[in-house]
Amino acid sequence: MFEAAEVGRKIPKKEFKALENDLRTELLAAQFRAQERGVPVVVIVSGVEGAGKGEVVDRLSEWLDTRGLDVRAFWDETDEERDRPPWWRYWRAMPPRGSISIFFGSWYTRPIVEHAFARIDEPEFDRQLRRIESIERMLSADGAVIVKLWFHLDQRTQHARLKKDLKAQGRKLKKISPLLESYEQSYDAFRRVSERAIRLTDSGHSPWHVIEATDARYRDLRTGQILLDMLLRAEHASGAEEEPQDRIPPREAALPEITEARRTVLDRVDLTRSLDEKEYDERLEAAQVKLYELAWKMRQQKRHVVAVFEGWDAAGKGGAIRRATRAMDARLYRTISTAAPTDEERAHHYLWRFWRHIPMRGNMTLYDRSWYGRVLVERVEGFAAEHEWRRSYLEINEFEEQLAEHGSVIMKFWVHISPEEQLRRFEEREATPWKLHKITDEDWRNREKWDAYVEAVGEMVERTSTAYAPWTLVPGNCKRLARVHVLETFCQRLEDAFGD
Amino acid sequence: MFEAAEVGRKIPKKEFKALENDLRTELLAAQFRAQERGVPVVVIVSGVEGAGKGEVVDRLSEWLDTRGLDVRAFWDETDEERDRPPWWRYWRAMPPRGSISIFFGSWYTRPIVEHAFARIDEPEFDRQLRRIESIERMLSADGAVIVKLWFHLDQRTQHARLKKDLKAQGRKLKKISPLLESYEQSYDAFRRVSERAIRLTDSGHSPWHVIEATDARYRDLRTGQILLDMLLRAEHASGAEEEPQDRIPPREAALPEITEARRTVLDRVDLTRSLDEKEYDERLEAAQVKLYELAWKMRQQKRHVVAVFEGWDAAGKGGAIRRATRAMDARLYRTISTAAPTDEERAHHYLWRFWRHIPMRGNMTLYDRSWYGRVLVERVEGFAAEHEWRRSYLEINEFEEQLAEHGSVIMKFWVHISPEEQLRRFEEREATPWKLHKITDEDWRNREKWDAYVEAVGEMVERTSTAYAPWTLVPGNCKRLARVHVLETFCQRLEDAFGD
Repeated sequence: MFEAAEVGRKIPKKEFKALENDLRTELLAAQFRAQERGVPVVVIVSGVEGAGKGEVVDRLSEWLDTRGLDVRAFWDETDEERDRPPWWRYWRAMPPRGSISIFFGSWYTRPIVEHAFARIDEPEFDRQLRRIESIERMLSADGAVIVKLWFHLDQRTQHARLKKDLKAQGRKLKKISPLLESYEQSYDAFRRVSERAIRLTDSGHSPWHVIEATDARYRDLRTGQILLDMLLRAEHASGAEEEPQDRIPPREAALPEITEARRTVLDRVDLTRSLDEKEYDERLEAAQVKLYELAWKMRQQKRHVVAVFEGWDAAGKGGAIRRATRAMDARLYRTISTAAPTDEERAHHYLWRFWRHIPMRGNMTLYDRSWYGRVLVERVEGFAAEHEWRRSYLEINEFEEQLAEHGSVIMKFWVHISPEEQLRRFEEREATPWKLHKITDEDWRNREKWDAYVEAVGEMVERTSTAYAPWTLVPGNCKRLARVHVLETFCQRLEDAFGD
Repeated sequence: MFEAAEVGRKIPKKEFKALENDLRTELLAAQFRAQERGVPVVVIVSGVEGAGKGEVVDRLSEWLDTRGLDVRAFWDETDEERDRPPWWRYWRAMPPRGSISIFFGSWYTRPIVEHAFARIDEPEFDRQLRRIESIERMLSADGAVIVKLWFHLDQRTQHARLKKDLKAQGRKLKKISPLLESYEQSYDAFRRVSERAIRLTDSGHSPWHVIEATDARYRDLRTGQILLDMLLRAEHASGAEEEPQDRIPPREAALPEITEARRTVLDRVDLTRSLDEKEYDERLEAAQVKLYELAWKMRQQKRHVVAVFEGWDAAGKGGAIRRATRAMDARLYRTISTAAPTDEERAHHYLWRFWRHIPMRGNMTLYDRSWYGRVLVERVEGFAAEHEWRRSYLEINEFEEQLAEHGSVIMKFWVHISPEEQLRRFEEREATPWKLHKITDEDWRNREKWDAYVEAVGEMVERTSTAYAPWTLVPGNCKRLARVHVLETFCQRLEDAFGD
């Protein structure tokens, strides 16, 4: 989930200045309109230590009109608050209609900290998240706009930043929040717990926005854009008499046309690497031998495995799948190729056709394309309406969570190639009689929508790469490397799950 | 919650026959239209043992066209099912678009049974309910109509019925589900657990319908009406492109104009009883002495108390409140009279003004009228739109649950009088100079809406009387009796909460 916010997005100073002025003007105008229309706005500022949340709050205070703006920091509870139900303090701070409250810390802080430090267990954590979701739904149904921002740093950057802060503080070390050190020590716990909190409360009515906070200019600009976008969407939806429509987070469109600002997870895949034939043969065979044994171990341990293969047309998904299945006893796995749905499948919810083939204990299903079609082709081609594919992220996460709870090992591969490499392969297919059937007009049409797919893949990874079902991005320009990468990851995941 | 289904509703044979024919015709037509429009319908048949769920299923099968109708009974899991995630069996049984599936037993059965028998704890139970809620939301967003029926019997009737069944079975006793006996033994546990399940999943998109099952004709007719109504509402809402609007359960309007069929919880309040002055004085004083001590106990134990007073105009709420407060040290309580909201209050969510006055530990707040105005006056007068007050039941339940979790003792009184008694009191007020200020034109106008209020009160009790915050219906025709009733209930609740 956080991988998508570890891609090194940046905005140079000059571009920032140019964009900032327009953004401020628009933000201010939107704030005034929200004031007139009597919309209460809650901006939740949260995220990892060291991400500069305080700076973001300062920036927003600078950009917005401070009349009708209220910044609320939630420190330790006061006596007054402790002696009342936990939500009382948040009700006190709730903005009246027409005002914006920036919550520095929020109702998420306590559950996350307490669960990360194992003071509450997972069912209790989930229960508290469920309550949050329910109260946010209630506020949102009452017309409130809830903008939930999560500022993220990768561990290395966070470490460097905290160290620098500590040094800068010199002798005042003792004054530093005592949590700071333990925060860093427990980075992994926090990451896992925060991911769960975000996933379970990433609703249509008040979605989360994970913002990469490494570059302050990108961080602030993106924050402002998201706030603006949420205000505009609320205006747009306000005509409706009934419950507010699902509000939809902003697209990347508003970002400057600069590579560093529009970087996605796919840009982190190193496509230059390759493998020579000898190394390929050796590593492939080693992995296949291992996989053979691991598949039997799955059987013995009565576990099950779900492996999903997605990727660009001609990226080599099929080849990778065959290298995996060849290594296993045919009784242990099934491969499901996802083509256009049958009549019967079309007559059900889109997840139904995949539920059908969920493996029993001791079995494995490999899906050649999968339920992710919903947020890839159906999104890009408009087969699903925006509010439909938007809510699919949550639906898919919950579906995979059910599998994981039942003991499934879940793997998801995106096989990535460059557009140039794809073109080369397309042309090769067209020139080779026995490969001609593999290339269709549709492939050429899909290719034209490359950028839209890049955006869709980025958001897919951002919203559905979870601890229990992570995405693996496979460098696919070199087919040998791709296959070995898939098989070795496959083995690693199974080893982790089944022991040694 | 179940009190509203223990009022003895009945439909005589003759009326049933007359209504049945129309209902069948309409149901069938609605079924065909749903078929054409490709709507999948899930009817969940659940409730207590002995309520005749099997008979209901038979009746529905008789009324509906069996083509496109599928009855699914969920017994023990098969091997096939056990080896897959729990929801797999329900996905298998999901109706395709245009079909109706009647689920005899459902995804609710296992969590309820397991929690009632303490095999799973409350956080885990809640987690499973949250999942149910989430999947129902997903199906509903996809166009499915989910009709959730809970058939209820009071304990006495259930006992009599099970005994009769057992006798009728003669020697085949051993064949009777071994759960039967333990079900009855654990009536209270089941009641509490079921109430929680219903409350936490009673959503706008797929609301619960609790049906009194004592009289088979009432039970079946009501079932048919609810199904019909849900189908019609789905048709009505199907124009909308976005998420389906909250579907709204049927009003009582379709019931025959027969007292026994339209009985509500208020009809169970015996208004003929009264108290002579001597007994009144004695009992009142005894209760006040007790209350004085209990209020101090609240202080010592750092607990808090929330008491809500609602009732007809001139029912004597104020008098009852004063009898309670006079008995307590003035530092221990506050009385909040709920009038029209202030500007500031109007600028917030309707619960905000009540959150403000939530007592600290060691204190008590008495609300003279309360948040229930939302589902009483705002509903009847149309100040809140139907979808707004509809969702308030859930919001109010969650609000009170938060108080209870924090250790509040919550009491809710509805002071009930007959319309004749109200008229007498109104006239008396008009004739008495120092009481004249207590009667306004609004009181007379409210009086004209008596029936609408009766319906609103009935649904309020049905949906918000919970184990942690039960409603007490107070017979108010005799003021002395009402006051004593309130005070004695007050003391009893506090004694239960604070020990001895």
